[in-house]
Amino acid sequence: MWRPFFEPYHLIIVQDGDPSKTIKVPDGFDYELYNRNDINKILGPKASCISFKDSACRCFGYMVSKKKYIFTIDDDCFVAKDPSGKEINALAQHIKNLLCPSTPNFFNTLYDPFREGADFVRGYPFSLREGVPTAVSHGLWMNIPDYDAPTQLVKPRERNTRYVDAVLTIPKGTLFPMCGMNLAFDRDLIGAAMYFGLMGDGQPIGRYDDMWAGWCIKVICDHLGLGVKTGLPYIWHSKASNPFVNLKKEYHGIFWQEEIIPFFQAATLSKDCTTVQKCYVELSKQVKEKLGKIDPYFVKLADAMVTWTEAWDELNPKN
Amino acid sequence: MWRPFFEPYHLIIVQDGDPSKTIKVPDGFDYELYNRNDINKILGPKASCISFKDSACRCFGYMVSKKKYIFTIDDDCFVAKDPSGKEINALAQHIKNLLCPSTPNFFNTLYDPFREGADFVRGYPFSLREGVPTAVSHGLWMNIPDYDAPTQLVKPRERNTRYVDAVLTIPKGTLFPMCGMNLAFDRDLIGAAMYFGLMGDGQPIGRYDDMWAGWCIKVICDHLGLGVKTGLPYIWHSKASNPFVNLKKEYHGIFWQEEIIPFFQAATLSKDCTTVQKCYVELSKQVKEKLGKIDPYFVKLADAMVTWTEAWDELNPKN
Repeated sequence: MWRPFFEPYHLIIVQDGDPSKTIKVPDGFDYELYNRNDINKILGPKASCISFKDSACRCFGYMVSKKKYIFTIDDDCFVAKDPSGKEINALAQHIKNLLCPSTPNFFNTLYDPFREGADFVRGYPFSLREGVPTAVSHGLWMNIPDYDAPTQLVKPRERNTRYVDAVLTIPKGTLFPMCGMNLAFDRDLIGAAMYFGLMGDGQPIGRYDDMWAGWCIKVICDHLGLGVKTGLPYIWHSKASNPFVNLKKEYHGIFWQEEIIPFFQAATLSKDCTTVQKCYVELSKQVKEKLGKIDPYFVKLADAMVTWTEAWDELNPKN
Repeated sequence: MWRPFFEPYHLIIVQDGDPSKTIKVPDGFDYELYNRNDINKILGPKASCISFKDSACRCFGYMVSKKKYIFTIDDDCFVAKDPSGKEINALAQHIKNLLCPSTPNFFNTLYDPFREGADFVRGYPFSLREGVPTAVSHGLWMNIPDYDAPTQLVKPRERNTRYVDAVLTIPKGTLFPMCGMNLAFDRDLIGAAMYFGLMGDGQPIGRYDDMWAGWCIKVICDHLGLGVKTGLPYIWHSKASNPFVNLKKEYHGIFWQEEIIPFFQAATLSKDCTTVQKCYVELSKQVKEKLGKIDPYFVKLADAMVTWTEAWDELNPKN
């Protein structure tokens, strides 16, 4: 289903789990494939910041990519249809979102003012109409909604059937739950902070990889004057993951997020944080200091954030 | 068109302009009608806070109402249809919006989590899922969008044809352009701040009545922990007002809002502002002090805000 939409682009496949297994990529795609051995070879001891047996491993792909725009998608996501029955070209919509400015400083009631047939409404200050560069485009999901384990358990039959024809900027100062299932971003603007954390194998937590990245990138985007959009495009999420397995992975996160979110809501970055890297290292210090009290895991995570930044800079030297 | 939707409710009609003219209300409606003479009689010298020859006069109706929920609508707004062709019961949707909690402290990517078929997504903190009481429901417009005069002049043929099937909470700390065309609110929760200011006859400005109210109520709702929703329901806005006339009314506002909005974005209320009235009087002082520098009009407006509060308390004594 994805062939016509993916074929024009370069694919990076990060193979999780057993590296001796072979992934067969269908003909006609331009791709690179990395398994755990490759990651270890390329990053050496710094490979410790890349998660194993968790979808968080995908962020290795962001690091090795040489492209400006990244689209990341889960393996159980397929092409969705719009209400007219037409297949949705998710990539085209993400690129549109990323190429149009965001408007985080004031809410536009007719949603994305840069979309055809829309504009800024009466009362929208003219000085804010240029907007700011868009760093992230967060797409949504038809069919299986992205619920946590408790909600999955309580509402096993809930399906998302509502196609909301909107793209909107998440206002400055507001956090959101960023899902990595259908996500695009401008690598030059925010890539260095798109770290999916330490999850899965050997870690006390899973299924918070994208959430962690979302909290971090939102604080940094707000600080640097970059925009985050959510809404279109939809993909078709085919199957719900096992809620019992998910509960085990999420268990700590459900507790911890009650303290993590107020931490990120209150986080401010100093004026000399003028690059994503500087912001990210500064944030890692605050994580260590303030979240380290919750659990030693956050000390390890803060260190991994620094390792990630070092690895990023090594693989992406400034010319 | 509105009969089946309005007939079950009590109408308050505030007649603007020449009070000697007679408004004919069709049979079968339960209504009160107030013209300028009535306003002057009821409020005495305090009637000075109610605008004349401007849509701002409608807020007199909010003051004399004895109902909990208020819906206000322009005279050129008609029943819209949803994409299936069904007529939209705007009041029913507004009441739904007002009866469901708002979620201003964290963004839910699947929009209103209380709507059928939706919920809070993964990563939404559980402690915030109770939400907060909803004070305001801001509805949208099909056909003629609510544009300012410059946009009307530049895009005379633009029509809103996009039905966005969503209701969402405007996050805490974010201002929005509140349009009075299709607006509902909980009078007990926020009525005392729903003042549409001094506009029209004898004033240097028009078409900012609802905007003014919107900035004030948002700051107060954020302070008091109340929610503001926008999105559904749509009404059909039949005709564009004259952009040349509008430009004359808006002219000062277009300049002034560049300073007014940063003022409201930075405004904070002290802890002892525990009621809407206290918040509103406190805000009026800040308006006088900080916006009075822009133009003497704001000193007059700040005084009118106090007069409004006094008149409100006189007409609505606490039992």
